[in-house]
Amino acid sequence: MLHGHGDDIHAYPDIRINFSSNVYNHFDHRNLYAHLAKHLPLVTHYPEPTSTRLEFALAEKLHIDASQVMVTNGATEAIYIIAEWGRHLSRAVIPPPTFSEYADACRRAGLSVGTEGEASMIWLCNPNNPTGTVYDHDPLVANIQTHPSTLFVIDASYAPFTREPLVSTTEAASWANVVMLHSMTKRFGVPGLRIGFITAHAEVIRQLRKLQMPWSVNSLAQEAACYLLEHEADYVLPLDELIAERKRVAAALTDKGLIDVHPSHTHILLCRLQQGTSSELKEYLAREHGILIRNASNFQGLTAQHFRIAVQTPAENDVLINAIRQFLTTYE
Amino acid sequence: MLHGHGDDIHAYPDIRINFSSNVYNHFDHRNLYAHLAKHLPLVTHYPEPTSTRLEFALAEKLHIDASQVMVTNGATEAIYIIAEWGRHLSRAVIPPPTFSEYADACRRAGLSVGTEGEASMIWLCNPNNPTGTVYDHDPLVANIQTHPSTLFVIDASYAPFTREPLVSTTEAASWANVVMLHSMTKRFGVPGLRIGFITAHAEVIRQLRKLQMPWSVNSLAQEAACYLLEHEADYVLPLDELIAERKRVAAALTDKGLIDVHPSHTHILLCRLQQGTSSELKEYLAREHGILIRNASNFQGLTAQHFRIAVQTPAENDVLINAIRQFLTTYE
Repeated sequence: MLHGHGDDIHAYPDIRINFSSNVYNHFDHRNLYAHLAKHLPLVTHYPEPTSTRLEFALAEKLHIDASQVMVTNGATEAIYIIAEWGRHLSRAVIPPPTFSEYADACRRAGLSVGTEGEASMIWLCNPNNPTGTVYDHDPLVANIQTHPSTLFVIDASYAPFTREPLVSTTEAASWANVVMLHSMTKRFGVPGLRIGFITAHAEVIRQLRKLQMPWSVNSLAQEAACYLLEHEADYVLPLDELIAERKRVAAALTDKGLIDVHPSHTHILLCRLQQGTSSELKEYLAREHGILIRNASNFQGLTAQHFRIAVQTPAENDVLINAIRQFLTTYE
Repeated sequence: MLHGHGDDIHAYPDIRINFSSNVYNHFDHRNLYAHLAKHLPLVTHYPEPTSTRLEFALAEKLHIDASQVMVTNGATEAIYIIAEWGRHLSRAVIPPPTFSEYADACRRAGLSVGTEGEASMIWLCNPNNPTGTVYDHDPLVANIQTHPSTLFVIDASYAPFTREPLVSTTEAASWANVVMLHSMTKRFGVPGLRIGFITAHAEVIRQLRKLQMPWSVNSLAQEAACYLLEHEADYVLPLDELIAERKRVAAALTDKGLIDVHPSHTHILLCRLQQGTSSELKEYLAREHGILIRNASNFQGLTAQHFRIAVQTPAENDVLINAIRQFLTTYE
C-alpha cells in the first residue's frame, strides 16, 4: 500500500473544510443514520458471504443480470481482485497520472507495469483521478473492439460526476474484454462504509468470484448500501453546480498566473503551483485556515508543485480561493 | 470461496436459536449500539488506511509492540494475506478436519495443499474448528523450535473459549517462524463487523503489511473494535458455564448411543449421527423447531453424518437436546 492517499484527515484534527478526497461532502445522511441505528443488531450476524441481496438490487438498477455484478469491499477490493485475476497476463499499462492502487495491485500480483505501449491489460480511470478528464466514448469503444485480446479495466468511480458520454455499464458487460468497477463511496458520499462493485460479462464475473474471500463487506455496509440504492432519489448530486463551480474555481485560481489548472470534465481539479510547493500550501491551508487539500506530488508523473481539490459548495470554494490567494501573496 | 459455511441463517428466516456458527450469542450489546449510534457520521469519512488506533490499543492490551500487530477485515483477510505471503513456499500442510478457508486461500495463492508430511507451511487452528480440540502446548512449542524453517500459522480465533494452556501471543511474536491470527468476531460476538488481526514478529508484520490493500476495515468496524477493547470487562464470556454445558450436551446426545461426539476443549461440539444424515437433521430442526445447526459434511475428512454445534445457554441447549431426541426417535 502506498502512503499518502487523499483524506488523511486523521492527521489533521482541526479541519473544517475537506477538499482533499474526491467525495462530495454535502449529502444529508440523517435518514441513513436513522435506518442504520435501527439495524445495529446486524453486527451480531455474519454478513452474507457474498452480498447477494445488494447484487440483485444493483443488477435491477443497472439493467443487467445479477450474474454480471459482484459487490466488493470498496472499489479497492475490486482493483486487487481484478489484478489478481490478470496475474497470467504479462504486462499492464497504466497511463499516468492516475490512482496509484492500480499499479500497487498489479505489482502485488506479479505483473510488470508500464505507462504506454503494447499491453495485455490496460487500466483506465474514466473520468480520471486526479485530472478529472474523460476518455472520449467513440475512440475508446473502437479501441476495445479492435483489441479483443487486451483486457480493458475501466474504473467508473467518478462516472456520476460528469456530463460527458461514457462507455455504459450495459455496453461494457456485453464485451468479454472489459471489466468495469464502480464506487458507491463516491456516488453517495460514504467512504467510511467501503462499498464498491464490479460489472462485467457473466463469465468474467464467474472467474472473479473464485478469487474473492467470503464476508469481505460487513453487515452494516451491506444494509446501508441496500438502503442507499433504494433511496437513490434522495441523493441528488448537484452536478450542474459542481461543474459550474469547478469552472469558476479554475478561473479564480489561474487569474494571477501563479497556478496552472489541468482541464477537467468533473468536480475534480488538478492544479500546479508555479512557485512554492504543494506541501507548503497544504500545511499552510491546514494550519491557518482549517482547509485540507490533496498534495498530489506522489502521483506518478506529477511534481512537488501539484495538488488536487474536489470542489464543494460555492461558499466553501470561496473560502478555499481566498485562502490560496493569501498563500500566493508571498510570491507576488 | 467454498459454499456452505456456518451461519447460513440468511437462508432460514424462522430461526430462533442459532447453534450453527461458533459465536456465543448472549452478550449484551446495548452499550455498543448506543456508542455506534452516536458515531454513524463516520460513514462520511474514509477509515484509517490501516487501523492504526486499533493496532495500538491491541498492542497495549496484549503486551506486544504495535509493530507486531496488523488489523484485518475479519480473520478471513488475515488467512488470505498470510497464504499470499507464503506463495513462495512449496507446500502447505493443513491437518483435517479444520476451517476450509485455509485450503481455499492456499490454493488461491498457488500452493499445493496436503494433510500431513513434510511442510514448508503448516496451518493449525488452535483450538480447532470444528472439533474444539487443542494442540498441547509443550509438544507444539518443541515442534516450532525444532523446525525453524517451517512457517507455523496458528489460528487463535477460539483461544478465549478454552482453559487449556495455549501458545501465547507474546511467545508467538518472539519467533520468526510463527504467525498468529485472531478474531474479535468470536471473542465479542460481533461477526457482522469483520474485525480480526495478526500478531507476529515485527519483521513478519512488515512484510504482511505490503500485501494488504488500504481501507480494508470500514470506519464503523474500526470504531466498534476500539470501543469493545476499551470495554472488554463488560464482555465476560461465561467460560465455566460454556464448558460445563458442552460436557452436559455431549453426555445427553450420546446417552442413547445414536450419536458419537468428538472430544472437545471448548464450547464447540462435533457430532456424528449413527443413523440418518446431518442434512436431514438440519432441515428437521430448522423446520420443526426453529433451530439452526451446522451441517459439517463439507469439512474435508468428515461425512454426511457429521454436524457441529456451539453450545449456548442451558435453556437453549435443553431445547436443542430435546429436539434432537425427537429426531432420533425415528431411528429407535
